[in-house]
Amino acid sequence: MNKYVFMFGEIEGSKALLGGKGFGLSEMTKLGIPVPPGFTITTEACNQFFKEGKEFLNKLYPEVDEKLKELEEKTGKNFGDEKNPLLVSVRSGAAISMPGMMDTVLNLGLNDSTVKGLAEKTNNERFAYDSYRRFVQMFGNVVLGIEHAKFENIIDEIKEKKGVKQDVELDTEDLKELVKRFKELVKNEKNIDFPNEPKEQLRLAIEAVFNSWNNDRAITYRKINKIPDDIGTAVNVQSMVFGNMGFDSGTGVAFTRNPSTGEKKVYGEYLLNAQGEDVVAGIRTPKEINQLKDDIPEAYNKLMEVCKKLELHFKDMQDIEFTIEHKKLFLLQTRTAKRTAQAAVKVAVDMVKEGLIDKETAIMRIKPEYIERLLHKRIDPNAKLEVIAKGLPASPGAATGKVVFDAEKAEELANKGEKVILVRRETSPEDIQGMAAAQGVLTARGGMTSHAAVVARGMGKCCVAGCEDIKVNEDENYFEVKGKRIEEGEIISLNGNTGEVILGEVPLLEPEMGGDFSTILQWADEIRKLGVRTNADTPHDAETARKFGAEGIGLCRTEHMFFKEERIPIMQKMILAKTKEERQKYLDQLMPMQKEDFKGLFKAMNGLPVIIRLLDPPLHEFLPKREELMVEIAVMKAKGEDEEKIKEKEKVLKRVEELYEFNPMLGHRGCRLGITFPEITEMQTKAIIEAACEVKKEGVKVMPEIMVPLVGNINELKDQKAVIIKTAEETLKEKNEKIEYKVGTMIEIPRAALTADELAEEADFFSFGTNDLTQTTLGYSRDDAGKFIKVYLEKGILKEDPFKTIDQNGVGKLVEMATRLGKQKNPQLEVGVCGEQGGEPKSVEFFHKAGLDYVSCSPYRVPVARLAAAQATIREKQNK
Amino acid sequence: MNKYVFMFGEIEGSKALLGGKGFGLSEMTKLGIPVPPGFTITTEACNQFFKEGKEFLNKLYPEVDEKLKELEEKTGKNFGDEKNPLLVSVRSGAAISMPGMMDTVLNLGLNDSTVKGLAEKTNNERFAYDSYRRFVQMFGNVVLGIEHAKFENIIDEIKEKKGVKQDVELDTEDLKELVKRFKELVKNEKNIDFPNEPKEQLRLAIEAVFNSWNNDRAITYRKINKIPDDIGTAVNVQSMVFGNMGFDSGTGVAFTRNPSTGEKKVYGEYLLNAQGEDVVAGIRTPKEINQLKDDIPEAYNKLMEVCKKLELHFKDMQDIEFTIEHKKLFLLQTRTAKRTAQAAVKVAVDMVKEGLIDKETAIMRIKPEYIERLLHKRIDPNAKLEVIAKGLPASPGAATGKVVFDAEKAEELANKGEKVILVRRETSPEDIQGMAAAQGVLTARGGMTSHAAVVARGMGKCCVAGCEDIKVNEDENYFEVKGKRIEEGEIISLNGNTGEVILGEVPLLEPEMGGDFSTILQWADEIRKLGVRTNADTPHDAETARKFGAEGIGLCRTEHMFFKEERIPIMQKMILAKTKEERQKYLDQLMPMQKEDFKGLFKAMNGLPVIIRLLDPPLHEFLPKREELMVEIAVMKAKGEDEEKIKEKEKVLKRVEELYEFNPMLGHRGCRLGITFPEITEMQTKAIIEAACEVKKEGVKVMPEIMVPLVGNINELKDQKAVIIKTAEETLKEKNEKIEYKVGTMIEIPRAALTADELAEEADFFSFGTNDLTQTTLGYSRDDAGKFIKVYLEKGILKEDPFKTIDQNGVGKLVEMATRLGKQKNPQLEVGVCGEQGGEPKSVEFFHKAGLDYVSCSPYRVPVARLAAAQATIREKQNK
Repeated sequence: MNKYVFMFGEIEGSKALLGGKGFGLSEMTKLGIPVPPGFTITTEACNQFFKEGKEFLNKLYPEVDEKLKELEEKTGKNFGDEKNPLLVSVRSGAAISMPGMMDTVLNLGLNDSTVKGLAEKTNNERFAYDSYRRFVQMFGNVVLGIEHAKFENIIDEIKEKKGVKQDVELDTEDLKELVKRFKELVKNEKNIDFPNEPKEQLRLAIEAVFNSWNNDRAITYRKINKIPDDIGTAVNVQSMVFGNMGFDSGTGVAFTRNPSTGEKKVYGEYLLNAQGEDVVAGIRTPKEINQLKDDIPEAYNKLMEVCKKLELHFKDMQDIEFTIEHKKLFLLQTRTAKRTAQAAVKVAVDMVKEGLIDKETAIMRIKPEYIERLLHKRIDPNAKLEVIAKGLPASPGAATGKVVFDAEKAEELANKGEKVILVRRETSPEDIQGMAAAQGVLTARGGMTSHAAVVARGMGKCCVAGCEDIKVNEDENYFEVKGKRIEEGEIISLNGNTGEVILGEVPLLEPEMGGDFSTILQWADEIRKLGVRTNADTPHDAETARKFGAEGIGLCRTEHMFFKEERIPIMQKMILAKTKEERQKYLDQLMPMQKEDFKGLFKAMNGLPVIIRLLDPPLHEFLPKREELMVEIAVMKAKGEDEEKIKEKEKVLKRVEELYEFNPMLGHRGCRLGITFPEITEMQTKAIIEAACEVKKEGVKVMPEIMVPLVGNINELKDQKAVIIKTAEETLKEKNEKIEYKVGTMIEIPRAALTADELAEEADFFSFGTNDLTQTTLGYSRDDAGKFIKVYLEKGILKEDPFKTIDQNGVGKLVEMATRLGKQKNPQLEVGVCGEQGGEPKSVEFFHKAGLDYVSCSPYRVPVARLAAAQATIREKQNK
Repeated sequence: MNKYVFMFGEIEGSKALLGGKGFGLSEMTKLGIPVPPGFTITTEACNQFFKEGKEFLNKLYPEVDEKLKELEEKTGKNFGDEKNPLLVSVRSGAAISMPGMMDTVLNLGLNDSTVKGLAEKTNNERFAYDSYRRFVQMFGNVVLGIEHAKFENIIDEIKEKKGVKQDVELDTEDLKELVKRFKELVKNEKNIDFPNEPKEQLRLAIEAVFNSWNNDRAITYRKINKIPDDIGTAVNVQSMVFGNMGFDSGTGVAFTRNPSTGEKKVYGEYLLNAQGEDVVAGIRTPKEINQLKDDIPEAYNKLMEVCKKLELHFKDMQDIEFTIEHKKLFLLQTRTAKRTAQAAVKVAVDMVKEGLIDKETAIMRIKPEYIERLLHKRIDPNAKLEVIAKGLPASPGAATGKVVFDAEKAEELANKGEKVILVRRETSPEDIQGMAAAQGVLTARGGMTSHAAVVARGMGKCCVAGCEDIKVNEDENYFEVKGKRIEEGEIISLNGNTGEVILGEVPLLEPEMGGDFSTILQWADEIRKLGVRTNADTPHDAETARKFGAEGIGLCRTEHMFFKEERIPIMQKMILAKTKEERQKYLDQLMPMQKEDFKGLFKAMNGLPVIIRLLDPPLHEFLPKREELMVEIAVMKAKGEDEEKIKEKEKVLKRVEELYEFNPMLGHRGCRLGITFPEITEMQTKAIIEAACEVKKEGVKVMPEIMVPLVGNINELKDQKAVIIKTAEETLKEKNEKIEYKVGTMIEIPRAALTADELAEEADFFSFGTNDLTQTTLGYSRDDAGKFIKVYLEKGILKEDPFKTIDQNGVGKLVEMATRLGKQKNPQLEVGVCGEQGGEPKSVEFFHKAGLDYVSCSPYRVPVARLAAAQATIREKQNK
């Protein structure tokens, strides 16, 4: 027969068998750390209980009784002994800490006779009866299931009768009265006498812990956090110690290092002559841990010794609870300590230096989001916030500033030194300068990969997008949120990590990127197999990314270059051109401008590859908006304005109409532009190759890679490759230079993935555009899907936003298929990803497993990707 | 050593070896049909020539000489004989008839001495010299490669000198002069003497035929028609016979049956005392074949006998050329006759009845497009057309009528008995009544599956869509095409089979659907394995389709029901509703209307399955257009109109703005609607099940299948299935009925195909929505792709419009994958397709091979699909 109950330290247990709390107590016992004796009923017992039902308890209880006897022997106290009663705490403890389950019953074993023993031992009758009434209340509530409020009502009645306000004003007699009244309540509610027999109390408590595993809150929590239902909870039964036995006793909590900064110094607080509850109640102010050195030096020294021992054993920072009973230190709990991002990095690096852990362990301890958090401003975690709305956490960081509703105003105020938050229904390329000037960006529409989100991430600027709660009135300069109206100039704050919109100013903490930060990333670089490049459209972005460790540019979106103020009129003329000749004329004007951009990028990436994507978006994105023109013309007509002017506008509208598309995302864009207007591809190729030649002369090592967007058919790639090679060779000849360049394709259309073997015969490289691939594979428009994705996440139809984390089952299948087909056909093929998912840790792990060569992401996510890539490598090794 | 030259009838040849023409001559010879003797140089010789080069001719010519000797023996004439010269024709002849190759050299063997023999034998010196000058001209042009115009210039000079206008006015001396001048031209151009030696003439002609296989026109033709380059052409050398040897001679062409009607009666025409050229020249009017009975009865009888023999041998209608020389009939060519759709059907059915062919052969002889053609009006093939533009052949048939630019006007004029063509930039659901009233529909935008195309095909109405050449001005009621302006009321015609837009009225032929038509389709039904259902939204469509042989409804689009005039205001209120209660109120009003529709469908499909798809399009399709509202409001404001009215409009605009989407195709539609507004799914399910209960009471056998659109994730299907089953079971309980119903899903998102195994666990059936699946797999918006698809087809990037014919390499892979995954997991799974490709023959064949259970298409394509499905079955059997 299996054994289900073990004394602390009796066996080599595990968290899975003993639960987290039981494991900690058991380990400490084995280490010789003073722990009040007790035993653990294993998680297997819990599972067996649910398999066999109540019958199982008949097998379990004899074993419990046996261990109880052992416990009585160890403590020299006896259950139900009037003089020297054994009192115990009963606590649940699953392998994974889980709210919703039954928490704690303290002082179990008290009854009308043992309470006297407690009074005598503590020399404090009031305390004994207070403990007793608390035990009855706690037991009645958590074990017997009587509403908490019903007990509180009785307390209120008695306080009223006595005319006092605080519980502490009640005297011993009042507490005795309470015990009596509580027991009557139990009788009335459950039609049973309150169990006086300690063993019966214990059995009921054990059963209650088991049952709490399957209460609604616990089930929901497990569902949300993907915790299996069949791991069960353990039950810990531990003898009580008392920290309120005078001023040589006390209770406290401590961290083995500073959980905020990571400093190697025990950090914590305690109260003398107190029990754990008193610390929580907050009536007395606890003392800092170093004062304990003066108060009870024996206990302090022991505590320091214990902390050291625990770290040596667990190889990580611990979070402990302790009680001192007559100068003797007892540990009641130890667990891995929660910590800030900064502390996580410092502790990990320090512990490697101390020889406690190796580099891989250090890396696995850093959550990728920590890295992101350290790169940006944060809201002071102690600040009180008035959250008025919640959108998507589109770009991390935090910002505070005056609300403005247009980009120009944002620039104007920023130039005057004001901090502003740009609020828009959605952003468009025209808003880029305004976004750059603002502290943060808030939009009412658009998802994680909307224009606002992508651009803000690129800029490293905080952004909350798709905040559907707010209704923006851009004409009258206000926004409404749940009936509240926020006018231009009012101050709001944004939390880009959570998506929260906060009313008023909040205190911000500056980014912290110390030496430990770069140490961790260096270690990550040593381990990871996946390359990390960056998405960058400007030399400035490229430089930033290189500082963050980017190993090249995975995506330069050339269209962003056309949106610059002085270029857009030429671009518009190019688009409106009626003949190829006219179009060529404006392209010739754009060429030198593009060339300068490319030169900047090549210089910033000296010696590293630079992938430049040919023009991708539909041309009408560069023209005035159709509906705005329609309105303008109608109004001009209604007002009887000058016919000539109207005709001029109508001409523009006509061309805009011609270019108008119902679903521009699936329209005339990507390589479809280059195929219908080869002169655009020619101009861009010429600009790239000329730029390469010119910087090469300056001693820069250039590695240009030209990427064709939106390919779905091998013939598209063949067509564009022919144009590129012809132009490139002509240009090289003209410049009398030799430069190696690659020609490759985006894989961002399902058909490209399905025919990747064909494409691999022509392509030097593949780059997955996971935004577009997600849009088409799932049929979700990234700009419109916000509405239903929100509902889908709430209903559990989706587990994750597929634009944030790659959809492994769908899009992922295509990525794996294309990588496999491509590399089989062309072993030289370089395969990467340049969607924003390239910087998202779960996705990075997937891309590692799928066999990609590199990921590319916005500059501020490069460090995250470096860490995530290393973690993926380590995890794979561990799972082998 | 291989033999490369064979006398006609010498071997059991094939078209591949002897070419089409050579094979026909050889077969006829073997059948004992009089054919002027000759020989064929095989296609293998041609291929060998291209392999080995000119060297090869040294092997070939001795063999040719040998056969030439045999020919001289057979004819009793000799090459170069002054008295009794052997003259031959030399013709190319590939296995597949192919324009662009060298055609014919007649009278080869003529020179200054043999011409005299010809003059003597024909007793016609002028004819002999005319033949001679034609020979020199033909040889000089096609063999020696001298421009045709240079010969014509010389003729013109001589005619001018003589003062005559027609060639026939030239006398023998003029012709002799011409021969002389032509030879001088050859000398000047090629610096060679014109070859007088007949053997040399023959060798040059053979080489010229070989070379013509690889001239540009031939190569291009093969590329376009996907004919392999390595099948080569044969060369036929045949002794000349002369139909111009008096009035007991003649020449003609005939069909063994009537190629227009299929009537079993030899059909043809002839000229007495004439050569083939005279028939072509059109100077004399040929006589009908039955007059030959009186003119030369021997020849007539022989011809009838030959025709019968040929049909018996070739088992198909033949198209022949013949010459009569002194009452003796010679066959110069036989080949399978081209025929009209009507004739094809009649001939096939008759031949089965006559025992000539079996049913399978009959079915394989009917091109699927014939069926489509027979179901619709056609433009009289003899009419002269002024084609002014070309769009996509979106819906077959032909129409002629007055141009109108709005739907209401179309209805108004149609009610007055006028025939109208509705011309729109694009159509929308509001135009449906106008489309129904019009003879045909022309749109400037949209592809093969645009609204206009789909609706028109459903109505069986002619439609030309995406005619980008025309610029429609709907406000001022005209359209422009290449500088021409067509006003409202002008008459145009449309050819829905070719996409042509024609100026003015054209004569139309009525559809012909005789008994033979239905016989063929019955035979097809016996053979095919694929089921054929229809896409129908109204009882009328359902009845039409059932008449055409539909075996159920594969797709009823419920949204079309909401667009009806009396329903759209309720639908709009439903959409604008702010609360669930308000929404429910309007849904309750829509329910009985939908129920009535469903009852009609169930009755029409008594005993057959009816798949009803839940609401699919984005809700804003039912609301006024955003940009129109914006213009209206701006104008109202500019004019200072009543504020209250403006506010009212603004309220509507606000909701429209909320629902506005950048890419509605990828937005909040399909099951995403049913998941966010479950009450819509509930209403529709209730309407379906109540309708089913009510018609069941009337004795109708109902088989409802409820289809969830746009599923991409198993959880979507689970969610909607739960709503459907709950509502259905409640409704059945209320009605106290038991009805079997199925719940299934569209597969129209790549992710659905990729996760089909998961979906198959929940779905009773799959239906591929190939329109949407093509849109997403290729990333082509069906409404916008027209622009670049046109260029893609021109550039050969695409071979076919993927919205018309399934893209087997891309979309097809997903269809195969989903069918395989689905049926593996759930062998009961019913798999069909309900995109318009379900009625396109190549796609039908693909769906057959992919293992689908049925296709579903618009009513007018049901017969096409039946035939195509049978052909797919037969072809598969043949390829096994």
